[in-house]
Amino acid sequence: MTRSEAPETLEGWYIQHDMYTVKWPEWRAMTPAERDVVIAESTDWLAAQATPEQGMSAFFSVLGHKADILAVHFRPTLEALNGVELGLRQTALFPYLQPAYSYLSVVELGLYEVLGVVNRKLAAEGLEPGVEGYEAARERELAAQKEALHPRLYPAVPAGRYVCFYPMDKKRGETYNWYALSMEERRQLMRGHGMVGRKYAGKVMQIISGSVGFDDWEWGVTLFADDPLVFKKLIYEMRFDPASSHYALFGGFYVGIRFEPSEVGALLSGQPPA
Amino acid sequence: MTRSEAPETLEGWYIQHDMYTVKWPEWRAMTPAERDVVIAESTDWLAAQATPEQGMSAFFSVLGHKADILAVHFRPTLEALNGVELGLRQTALFPYLQPAYSYLSVVELGLYEVLGVVNRKLAAEGLEPGVEGYEAARERELAAQKEALHPRLYPAVPAGRYVCFYPMDKKRGETYNWYALSMEERRQLMRGHGMVGRKYAGKVMQIISGSVGFDDWEWGVTLFADDPLVFKKLIYEMRFDPASSHYALFGGFYVGIRFEPSEVGALLSGQPPA
Amino acid sequence: MTRSEAPETLEGWYIQHDMYTVKWPEWRAMTPAERDVVIAESTDWLAAQATPEQGMSAFFSVLGHKADILAVHFRPTLEALNGVELGLRQTALFPYLQPAYSYLSVVELGLYEVLGVVNRKLAAEGLEPGVEGYEAARERELAAQKEALHPRLYPAVPAGRYVCFYPMDKKRGETYNWYALSMEERRQLMRGHGMVGRKYAGKVMQIISGSVGFDDWEWGVTLFADDPLVFKKLIYEMRFDPASSHYALFGGFYVGIRFEPSEVGALLSGQPPA
Amino acid sequence: MTRSEAPETLEGWYIQHDMYTVKWPEWRAMTPAERDVVIAESTDWLAAQATPEQGMSAFFSVLGHKADILAVHFRPTLEALNGVELGLRQTALFPYLQPAYSYLSVVELGLYEVLGVVNRKLAAEGLEPGVEGYEAARERELAAQKEALHPRLYPAVPAGRYVCFYPMDKKRGETYNWYALSMEERRQLMRGHGMVGRKYAGKVMQIISGSVGFDDWEWGVTLFADDPLVFKKLIYEMRFDPASSHYALFGGFYVGIRFEPSEVGALLSGQPPA
Amino acid sequence: MTRSEAPETLEGWYIQHDMYTVKWPEWRAMTPAERDVVIAESTDWLAAQATPEQGMSAFFSVLGHKADILAVHFRPTLEALNGVELGLRQTALFPYLQPAYSYLSVVELGLYEVLGVVNRKLAAEGLEPGVEGYEAARERELAAQKEALHPRLYPAVPAGRYVCFYPMDKKRGETYNWYALSMEERRQLMRGHGMVGRKYAGKVMQIISGSVGFDDWEWGVTLFADDPLVFKKLIYEMRFDPASSHYALFGGFYVGIRFEPSEVGALLSGQPPA
Repeated sequence: MTRSEAPETLEGWYIQHDMYTVKWPEWRAMTPAERDVVIAESTDWLAAQATPEQGMSAFFSVLGHKADILAVHFRPTLEALNGVELGLRQTALFPYLQPAYSYLSVVELGLYEVLGVVNRKLAAEGLEPGVEGYEAARERELAAQKEALHPRLYPAVPAGRYVCFYPMDKKRGETYNWYALSMEERRQLMRGHGMVGRKYAGKVMQIISGSVGFDDWEWGVTLFADDPLVFKKLIYEMRFDPASSHYALFGGFYVGIRFEPSEVGALLSGQPPA
Repeated sequence: MTRSEAPETLEGWYIQHDMYTVKWPEWRAMTPAERDVVIAESTDWLAAQATPEQGMSAFFSVLGHKADILAVHFRPTLEALNGVELGLRQTALFPYLQPAYSYLSVVELGLYEVLGVVNRKLAAEGLEPGVEGYEAARERELAAQKEALHPRLYPAVPAGRYVCFYPMDKKRGETYNWYALSMEERRQLMRGHGMVGRKYAGKVMQIISGSVGFDDWEWGVTLFADDPLVFKKLIYEMRFDPASSHYALFGGFYVGIRFEPSEVGALLSGQPPA
Repeated sequence: MTRSEAPETLEGWYIQHDMYTVKWPEWRAMTPAERDVVIAESTDWLAAQATPEQGMSAFFSVLGHKADILAVHFRPTLEALNGVELGLRQTALFPYLQPAYSYLSVVELGLYEVLGVVNRKLAAEGLEPGVEGYEAARERELAAQKEALHPRLYPAVPAGRYVCFYPMDKKRGETYNWYALSMEERRQLMRGHGMVGRKYAGKVMQIISGSVGFDDWEWGVTLFADDPLVFKKLIYEMRFDPASSHYALFGGFYVGIRFEPSEVGALLSGQPPA
Repeated sequence: MTRSEAPETLEGWYIQHDMYTVKWPEWRAMTPAERDVVIAESTDWLAAQATPEQGMSAFFSVLGHKADILAVHFRPTLEALNGVELGLRQTALFPYLQPAYSYLSVVELGLYEVLGVVNRKLAAEGLEPGVEGYEAARERELAAQKEALHPRLYPAVPAGRYVCFYPMDKKRGETYNWYALSMEERRQLMRGHGMVGRKYAGKVMQIISGSVGFDDWEWGVTLFADDPLVFKKLIYEMRFDPASSHYALFGGFYVGIRFEPSEVGALLSGQPPA
Repeated sequence: MTRSEAPETLEGWYIQHDMYTVKWPEWRAMTPAERDVVIAESTDWLAAQATPEQGMSAFFSVLGHKADILAVHFRPTLEALNGVELGLRQTALFPYLQPAYSYLSVVELGLYEVLGVVNRKLAAEGLEPGVEGYEAARERELAAQKEALHPRLYPAVPAGRYVCFYPMDKKRGETYNWYALSMEERRQLMRGHGMVGRKYAGKVMQIISGSVGFDDWEWGVTLFADDPLVFKKLIYEMRFDPASSHYALFGGFYVGIRFEPSEVGALLSGQPPA
C-alpha cells in the first residue's frame, strides 16, 4: 500500500459557526423594560461583531428545534474567535441563551487545479523537483497565486437571505475510500463535482472550510442564497455525482434566515426576519 | 464513474413537523383558573394556525415518551414557518412545553413519470435537447404540468384521524447505492414501489416532502389514516419491496391522534382526543 | 430485483411499554404523611389500569439505572393507550416520575404457517387466486382462523414473576437481508427459530408485538418467566440460530420484577417486590 | 443455513455494576456537621452491603467524568440486587448522587471445555445421546461439575487495588459472525484466547459475567489488579488474538481505585483512596 | 487464524485530559468581589497543579461549545490523577464548572523499532529465544532502553501555544483489520506514517498515549504547536497515509489556546489568552 499524495491547500479566515437556543420562558419572564435593556446591549454587541477590525460576522434565525440563532464569524485568528465567544458569554443576553452547536473551521481552497497550473508553468521553465531553484520558484509562484486568491481566502460573508450549513467527511469505507484514491482520480472527481456547482452560479454562493484537526468532521459547507429551494436542488443534484454518492458522508443540516443586528429585538419579540 | 442523472422535482408548501413534550408537573402546579387562561389563549392560537391566510396546520396527540403534541404546519415560505415557531414561543403555553423534535421539509413531487410524459410529447413534436425551441417548449410544458399538479403541491393537510411521520434516506452503501443507479433503474424501482402504495388507496393519504439541504434526512413521509393498523400493514408490505429492502434507511417513527384546536383544553386536562 | 411477498399478519391488543425513573430526592423530601396520600392515589390508579374494561396492565420494578418502573399496558385502541399515559400525567405521583422510555406496538401473529394451512385447504377445494369464489372463501377461512386465534391476539398479560423486554429488527444488510429472502426461505428460518422456542415451553411465555410504522424498531419481544435465568438461556440459544445470528438486530434489554398495585407503596419505600 | 450449537453455561451470583456521579456543589453546600451525619450513615450502609448474608459488594473511586463511584454487587437473586439499589435510594446520601451507568449480569462459566470432558467421560462409559441412561448420567455428571465449580460461580469479589470494567459483544458481521461458527471453531478460538489470559495469571483476576437478555451487551468483563498497567497490557495483547481482533465488539471502559466503606468520608472530602 | 504478535510498549506518565464548560450565568451572577475571591483561589490551585512534586499540568481555553477549559495532567499514578479531579471538586470554582469530557491514558512508546534494535543486538551476540541467558540479557537491554527513553516517557507537557487533542482506534473492519496484520506489515505501515510526521519536526510536538483498558478509544493523540494551521496540515497529510486511510478511526477533536494559571481570572472575565 503506497501513500496517496495529499492535495495542498490554502487557508484564509478562521470560521466559527455558533448556534444557540433562546431560553424563551426565562426571557419572557422579564418585564418589557428589562428586555429592552438587554436588546439594546445585544444590538450593539451584534453590530460590533458584524464589522470588526478584521473579518465579519452574520446572523441567522434558524428553523426548527435544533437552534434559534446561528452566528457565522470570520476572523483572522483563533484568539479572535475565542474572544467572540468569551465576549458573548459576558453579555446580559447570554443567560437567556443555551449553546446548541458550534463548528470550528478555516476557509480552504483546494489546490488540485492551481498546483497543476503552477507545476506546468515551472516545468515549462525547466524547473522540476530536484532541479536547483525549483523550491524557490515554486514558493514565489505559490505566493503569487495566494496573492491572487486572497479575496477568496479572506472573503466577506456572502450575501443571500438564506443560509444552509452542514459538516461533511469523505468516506474511508472498505470499498470506497477517498483517501486511497490517486491524486488524479480525486482531481477528476472534484472537477465533475465542480461542474454541477457551476450550474448554480449566481444563484448560490458557497464557502468551503476545512476542519481536519479542528472539529469532528473534515469540512464545513456554508451556502448562501436568495431562494432556499436552491439549497435542495443543488445538494440533491450533487448527491448523484460520484464524488458525493460514493464518497461523501454528511452531518446535520442547519437552515436559517438572515437578520441584521438591528433586528435582534424584533426576533426576540417573536418576529421572523423582515 | 459517470454521474447519474438527478430526477427533477416540483416543490410546494414548506412543512414543519413540530413536537413538544408537556411539562406536566409545572402545568398542573397552576390553579385551574390559571390553566383556563392559558387554555383559552392556546385554543385561539392553534385555531389561528389551523387556517392561516395561506397553508394549514393540524395537531396530534402523540403516543409514548417521545412527545405529547405534534403540530404539522404547511406554509408558503420559510418566513411563515419561522413566524409560527417564534409566535408559539411568545404564548403563555410555551413555558409548559419542551421542544422534543422538529423536521423541516417541502412538499415534493418526483417527476420520474411526469418528465417522461413531457419528453415523449416534445419528442413527438420533434423537439429534443439542442433543437431550437426545445427549452422554451419544455418550460411551457412543465409550467402546464406544474399548474395541473398545483393541488398536489399545495394540498390541505389530509383528513384521517391518525398520523404517522418518519424521515428516511436512500442508502449509499458500498454495494447498494441508490444514487449510483441509472435513472431508468430508479424509475422502475419507484414504479414497483408505487404499486404497493396504490393497493392502499382510499385507506391512507400520504404526503412526501423533500428535505435534502433542509434537515438531517433526505425525505419526510407523513401518512394519514382512519385506522392506525393501516400504517403497519402498508409500511411492512413496502419493506419487502426492493426500493425499501435494499435502498431505504429509516429514522424514528411518530404516531399521533388528531385533535382540533378546541380540544386542546381537554387534552391538557388528560383526555385523549374524543 | 423482484419484490418478495410480505407475510400476512393478524393483530390484537395495542401495547404500550412505559418506563419511568422515580425522582427519589423529590419523593423523599415529602413528609411520610404526604407520601401516604400519593401512595393511596397511586395504588388506586394502578389497580384501575390493571383491570380496565378491556385489556390489562402489569407493573414491574426495573433493575438498573435505565428505569425504576415498567408498566405494560394491553388495550384495544390507541385512544385507550393515550388515555392511560395522559391519565398518569394528571396524578399526584407523576411529578415524582421521569419518563425514561416507551414502546408502542400491537400484538402480532405471523401467518407464515396459518396461511399455508388456509391455502392448502382452499386449493384442495379447487379454489385458487383468480378462481371465482376464491376471495370470499379465503376471507371466510381467515375470519375463522382469526376467531380461533382470538385468545392469542387478545391475551391476558402472561403470568411470571420476571419480565424481559427488548425491541428488535430484521437486518437489511448488504449480504444478509431478511426482506430480500423469499417467503419460503423466511418460513424455514422462522420454523427453525420456533423449534428453539418450543424447548422452553412451560418455562417462558412470550408476546411478540409488531411495531413497523409505530415505533423505532420492527418488533417488541416481551418474555415472562418465574426464573430470570431462562431469559438468558433462551435468548443465548436463539442467537446461534440463523434467523438471529444472521438476521436479527437488537435494541436495549429491560428486566424487571413484577409487583402488584397494592405493593407500589412498599416499592416507593424501598422494598423490592415481595 | 444450519443452526450452530449453543455452548452450555453455568451461572452463579447475579452482578450489578452501579455507577454514580457525586453532585459536588450540592454536597459541598452543606455544613461539615451536616455532611458528617450523611457520611456516618453512608459508611454504615456501604459496610452492610460489603458483607451481606449472601454475596458481597466492593466500591471504587472512578477516574474521569463518566462517574465518581462504582459499586460492584454480587448477590444470589435479582430481588437482592433490586433491594440494594432501592435501599441506596432511601439513604441521606442519594440526593447527592446522580446515577451514571449500571450493568446487570450473572457470573458465567462457559462449558466449552467442561462439557467436552463430561461427554468424553460418558462416551467412555458407552453413554451417548439416545442411549438409555444418558440424560440421567449427564445430569449427574453436570451436577458434580457444578459442585466442583461452585467457588468459581459464587466467588468473593476478587482482591486487587484497581478495577477495570467493560461490556462486550461477539460480532455478527456479514463476514465475521461468531454465532455462525461451529462449536469446534469457537472452542479453538476460546482456547487460544485463554492462553493469552493465562500469561497474566497472578497479576490479574477476571470475572466474566453473561448479560444476554439482561442488559445491552452480551458479556461484562471485570478485571482486578494491583498494577493498573496490567489492564492495558492484557487487553492490548488479547486484541491481536483472532477471538478479539475479528469477533469482539467493546463498550465503554471504566477504571477505578478500590476504597473501603470506612474511607467514603475521606473520598467525599476529596481524598483519593489511601 | 493465527494470533498476530502484539507489539511491546513502554509506558510513562498517566495522563488525564479534563474538560469543563463554565456555567457563565451563575458565574456572572456573583459580585465582582465574590468572583475575585474564587479567582484568587483558582489561580493558586491551577499553579499548584502546574508544577506538582511529580508530573505537570497545562491549561487551555477551548474553542466552541464542547468545552471552555481543557486541563492536561501528567502524573505518576492513578491516585495522583484521582487526587487532582477530587481536589478540583472541593474548590470554590467547581460549582461554576460543568464536566464536559475527560480522557484517561498513559504515555506510550511503541517498541516496533526499539525491539528490532534490541533483538538484532542480542542475535549478534548469539542470544535468541530459548538460548540460555537470552531472557536476562533481554531484560537488561530493555531496562537500558527504558532508561534511555525515560525523558520521552516522563516528558514535560510540550510547549506550543495551541493544543489539539483527539482519541483514535485502529480499525477492525471485515476487510481492513489492523489487529490481523502481521507484525512486519504493521511495522512498515507505522514507519511510513512516522515519515509524514517527521516532515513536521520542529513545527509540532506530539504525545501519544495508550488507553486500551483505560478509556473508550485505544489511543489519545495530543499535538502542540505555535501555529494551529499545522494541526490541519499534518493530520490532513497523514489521512492519505495507508495507516490512517485504511486503519484509523477518529473520535472528537478538541482545540485550545494555552493560558497560564495567572491568566485564569482574565479568562473568566472574558479575555482570550493574551
